[in-house]
Amino acid sequence: MSFRADVITLFPELFPGPLGASILGRALAEGRWQLAATQLRDFATDRHRTVDDTPSGGGPGMVLKPDILARAIDAIAPEGDLRPKLLMSPRGRPLDQQRVRELAAGPGALIVCGRFEGVDQRVIEARGLEEVSIGDYVLAGGEVAAMVLLEAVVRLIPGVLGAAESSHEESFEGDLLEYPQYTRPALFEGLAIPEVLVSGDHGKIARWRQQEAEALTARRRPDLLARSRKKAIGKAK
Amino acid sequence: MSFRADVITLFPELFPGPLGASILGRALAEGRWQLAATQLRDFATDRHRTVDDTPSGGGPGMVLKPDILARAIDAIAPEGDLRPKLLMSPRGRPLDQQRVRELAAGPGALIVCGRFEGVDQRVIEARGLEEVSIGDYVLAGGEVAAMVLLEAVVRLIPGVLGAAESSHEESFEGDLLEYPQYTRPALFEGLAIPEVLVSGDHGKIARWRQQEAEALTARRRPDLLARSRKKAIGKAK
Repeated sequence: MSFRADVITLFPELFPGPLGASILGRALAEGRWQLAATQLRDFATDRHRTVDDTPSGGGPGMVLKPDILARAIDAIAPEGDLRPKLLMSPRGRPLDQQRVRELAAGPGALIVCGRFEGVDQRVIEARGLEEVSIGDYVLAGGEVAAMVLLEAVVRLIPGVLGAAESSHEESFEGDLLEYPQYTRPALFEGLAIPEVLVSGDHGKIARWRQQEAEALTARRRPDLLARSRKKAIGKAK
Repeated sequence: MSFRADVITLFPELFPGPLGASILGRALAEGRWQLAATQLRDFATDRHRTVDDTPSGGGPGMVLKPDILARAIDAIAPEGDLRPKLLMSPRGRPLDQQRVRELAAGPGALIVCGRFEGVDQRVIEARGLEEVSIGDYVLAGGEVAAMVLLEAVVRLIPGVLGAAESSHEESFEGDLLEYPQYTRPALFEGLAIPEVLVSGDHGKIARWRQQEAEALTARRRPDLLARSRKKAIGKAK
């Protein structure tokens, strides 16, 4: 069975959107993964189709009601559905490439897109929602965040990327930033491609790229370099 | 003059996409911000409309050519255009709420969406592209990343959010995760709303929320808490 994503949202018309384009869109059309977006309001019980209410204890904004969201979750992922249930939220654990790989190896995901001020804590706990953050910034809602997560995950599903891109992915350790890339023309506004890259010496090229990747990571993301070294030490043991 | 975003992409048809919905879409229609997406291929010079070539020194994938991208950038943001030129890239500095605020206070942005294996380093340097990463995961391209950045930025432009949401934003320090939220019904699957939130004691509620936010942040994101404490110490001096 292929990877299946269900999205619960107030804006189902935004899906597949960017996920329907390019490589991911082709894979979707070929059935390598499946995507359905469900309107949360369809699970409201009043004639105004209310899904939110004011925060207990006061404060601005609106909070998604636990009862309505629980009904939607239970309808889309009944007991026995083994897919992880994710809630896109700036309170969540930051998404990283390791979690992306785990999700890509699994049966799919149910993704709840928050809006307004948040989601009632009781439904988060009662349905075991895993809060996932895509970064330390505030969005208007979880929809584009869900697209980010799905784009990262789906490109790792076997057969989605071409062979060349896949082999590259396997070599990507995730702990070093990419070395700089160059392509033709040989001279651009008087700037040449670094000599080593046109030397034809593959060993030298590999060493230069490794050095460049390490230097860039040390300069921009020392946090990643520390993690990478810890792993290398772990492997050597 | 309102905030103006220009996006250079191989998939201009994806814009505005999610940025055309809800609050951001209304603000776009009202002219509170402007968005244009430009097809990079329109700046190619051959009849195949080639924008990429193989990486110098070998390796999988394709690299965006510096000459074609430079032509596109120069056409869209000629000398004197003071907007920052951003390149969505996992090699970039991680986007955070502080950079989002700076961008929202400025005249707009030119955003280049990478695809393939990357962008020739010479055009990054020659045009002073600021590489921005939205998180430590790999996407198929920069388009959805650009949407994330624009959604985060545009919601801070004056008049885009309603008054209630704006006042909340002002109180958001960005260094603590949000306290848990609750709303009606009072009882959900046997679970009650925490008593303090229905006590009517606003001082007690504020203290409880602060404690919950600190406890959650300590548990999930000790890195944010360390940063928050450092700032508080800085202010006290």
